[in-house]
Amino acid sequence: MTDREEDEDERAGVLDRLREAIAAGAAARAAAELNELHPSEIADVLESCPPEERAALWKLVDPRTKGDVLIEAHGEVRRQLIDESAADELAAAVQRLDLDALSDIYDELPDGVVEAVLSAMDAQRRERFHVVRTYPPDTAGGLMDVDALAVRPDVTLRMVLSYLSRYRAENERLPAHTDAVMVTGLGGNYLGRLAVIDLVSLDRETRVHAVMNRETEPIAADTPARRVARRFEDEDLVSAPVVDDRGRLIGRITVDDVVDVIREQAENSVMAGAGLDAAEDTFAPPLASAWRRAIWLGINLVSAFVAAWVIGLFESSINQIVALAVLMPVVASMGGVAGTQSLAVVIRGIALEQVKEGNRLRLFNKELAVGLLNGGLWALAVVLIVTFWFQRPVLSLVFGAALVLNLVWGVAAGTLIPMALARLRIDPALAGGVMLVALTDAFGFFVFLGLATLLLL
Amino acid sequence: MTDREEDEDERAGVLDRLREAIAAGAAARAAAELNELHPSEIADVLESCPPEERAALWKLVDPRTKGDVLIEAHGEVRRQLIDESAADELAAAVQRLDLDALSDIYDELPDGVVEAVLSAMDAQRRERFHVVRTYPPDTAGGLMDVDALAVRPDVTLRMVLSYLSRYRAENERLPAHTDAVMVTGLGGNYLGRLAVIDLVSLDRETRVHAVMNRETEPIAADTPARRVARRFEDEDLVSAPVVDDRGRLIGRITVDDVVDVIREQAENSVMAGAGLDAAEDTFAPPLASAWRRAIWLGINLVSAFVAAWVIGLFESSINQIVALAVLMPVVASMGGVAGTQSLAVVIRGIALEQVKEGNRLRLFNKELAVGLLNGGLWALAVVLIVTFWFQRPVLSLVFGAALVLNLVWGVAAGTLIPMALARLRIDPALAGGVMLVALTDAFGFFVFLGLATLLLL
Repeated sequence: MTDREEDEDERAGVLDRLREAIAAGAAARAAAELNELHPSEIADVLESCPPEERAALWKLVDPRTKGDVLIEAHGEVRRQLIDESAADELAAAVQRLDLDALSDIYDELPDGVVEAVLSAMDAQRRERFHVVRTYPPDTAGGLMDVDALAVRPDVTLRMVLSYLSRYRAENERLPAHTDAVMVTGLGGNYLGRLAVIDLVSLDRETRVHAVMNRETEPIAADTPARRVARRFEDEDLVSAPVVDDRGRLIGRITVDDVVDVIREQAENSVMAGAGLDAAEDTFAPPLASAWRRAIWLGINLVSAFVAAWVIGLFESSINQIVALAVLMPVVASMGGVAGTQSLAVVIRGIALEQVKEGNRLRLFNKELAVGLLNGGLWALAVVLIVTFWFQRPVLSLVFGAALVLNLVWGVAAGTLIPMALARLRIDPALAGGVMLVALTDAFGFFVFLGLATLLLL
Repeated sequence: MTDREEDEDERAGVLDRLREAIAAGAAARAAAELNELHPSEIADVLESCPPEERAALWKLVDPRTKGDVLIEAHGEVRRQLIDESAADELAAAVQRLDLDALSDIYDELPDGVVEAVLSAMDAQRRERFHVVRTYPPDTAGGLMDVDALAVRPDVTLRMVLSYLSRYRAENERLPAHTDAVMVTGLGGNYLGRLAVIDLVSLDRETRVHAVMNRETEPIAADTPARRVARRFEDEDLVSAPVVDDRGRLIGRITVDDVVDVIREQAENSVMAGAGLDAAEDTFAPPLASAWRRAIWLGINLVSAFVAAWVIGLFESSINQIVALAVLMPVVASMGGVAGTQSLAVVIRGIALEQVKEGNRLRLFNKELAVGLLNGGLWALAVVLIVTFWFQRPVLSLVFGAALVLNLVWGVAAGTLIPMALARLRIDPALAGGVMLVALTDAFGFFVFLGLATLLLL
């Protein structure tokens, strides 16, 4: 048995034991089993259950870990868990969270809970929280923790060490992922970073300014999350300073937040292609799921009827040569597939920022050439197949020509649509596929039936 | 102008300036401009160029950073850069790399270079390198660095600190991302981790065993990379110990490697849906691109001809009622879209490990219900449209019934295909979409034309 299977079985085992315990009325046993897990594992278990079971299990989660479980849960599942919680319990659970985590779920909390949480904060914490809330969640400011440790440049490493010991003694722990201490000047201006590893391995009488790293550019608070992720990837960062528009240190982004951003982007690109929201609960009730997916089907229905209308224009041609009806979906489908390939390459190129002003035209020309080459190759193949099948050489030539034209049309659309959507700030992964298929279907039917009408009738 | 646009302009600017400098024969200026960039940025610039320009720029890259640029470059681009390099230069460039990075590109290096690199290593480094090479690149063993620092449990923090200072003095630097020192027992058995931050903030006379973290489970060397990524995400790790099958510490995985794994998965899921390899060079020469994409188009052509053959079975029905030809693509396309939605939800559920033995049936039933609900909803709409358009109530009823049936067929296929492919260890993102569309097209045509033949003729 492979590692993955074992692991899957182990997880399935937990779920099965939980179900059994609940069915047997042994809630205490189920609760003990559940609360042995890491908060992220509890969230996984909850996301693997249908809504009713999820509600029952949620009641068993230790109130002290409920806040962390909420943070780990996604989209609709999180919303359900919040709805299922009593207001006072919820307030107590989220009170314990880091400010950036609290900010993440803040907008989903009921009003009463929000007030209770705010009024329980001390003034300093409340002020810091308002700083985090100033920035949209998908920017550096929205991702940052406000608990960055900062020291002055003219102190010695020994003084930094004793500051850290004192901080720890007072707060019980240091901020998570403290791989560096920030160095700030007068007015809180960011000057550089002092790696913790330098603290332990360099001479203690050294002054901070002599060993601090001035090279890491701080991140502006309004930087979009995806650019933050790129910087972490490119520079292999664990944490990075965030500054406001006047260069003052206001927080710190850590790699765990960045990992979440990248994962969300990945999930989003899988789901968006089918017109789905990444927040969708895999085990949502059918009616809710159906309703959310209906819009996308409706959009596709309109585009399919446009294609049907195009076919309708050529009813009399089809009436005379039924083979046209047999072959037309092949032309449409091949254009769609070729276009989808260009779409994927260009969407990735845009995401990786390889596609820029200076090389758009070159990429377009390249894709066009690819479309022509593949159109030519497969047109040759289909001309042979169709000649053999229908014994009508002119029909096969029309079919081959329509195939080449629709492939070229497809790659052109597959290249230009995402470039245009990106300019309009619409996610090309979301709208690109439907638009493409609408265009390749309609054009495919039109060019094949049109050519046939001109040349065969 | 937004941040992103500015940034894009700045990057486009670099590329433009480089091109101008090269065109003007000012290679030295171009080289200076290029070598000011971070290796990952140099890789970005190279990936944004067509192959000829890329080769010219590569000659200008500082030989000392060439190794790092190679590591940052992807797939085909990396292969081209290796091909363009002289053997001795290449050997010198990769000599400088960390062992896990070297292992990543090792298989792509020409034989002569491999020998030169191995013979230049000292015995210890060569032995460590062989350990890394034992494990496939997509496992924990393949991802790990072998330079983990380890101490015994019975020493004091003061002794650990002086060990670190000595290590640093001898090696000029500590291993990257050293957020913790590993603790090993006799025979190198992994016992726990000592966070560096504890070293700086706890009493120096404390013994390691009193403060080490025993909770982080070490990662087995044969754990698949995707599971490693999940653990880092779930537990917010920066580094984690890797052990062999006897529990001995053999290395350490750091978060920057994990970020690369997650990013690659994301890229892969975008590209696989169009039958493309994530290694594909966006600016590859058209002939090479066309050739690689041709196979996918060929597979699709076969599936499209199967659908055409299904239509061919009903030629005489279409001959009598041309409206069938007009409407049949709508039935096929709606089934495809509904199926794609189920496919995306199930592929994500499998990736997040939410879909397990115990809830597969439930998920299937849910998707089926979603298909029925949406089939019913849109069948109602199309019956009205078609009655109005063609004035044939029985035809509209047949059309509505076929739509419902193909939607249900689509969601069933969209749910079962990825589950089956995952069992067979085939990437569902790669093969799932084509198989689905082949099934929904063929069934859509069959059920609509078949019902019409039965009921209308």
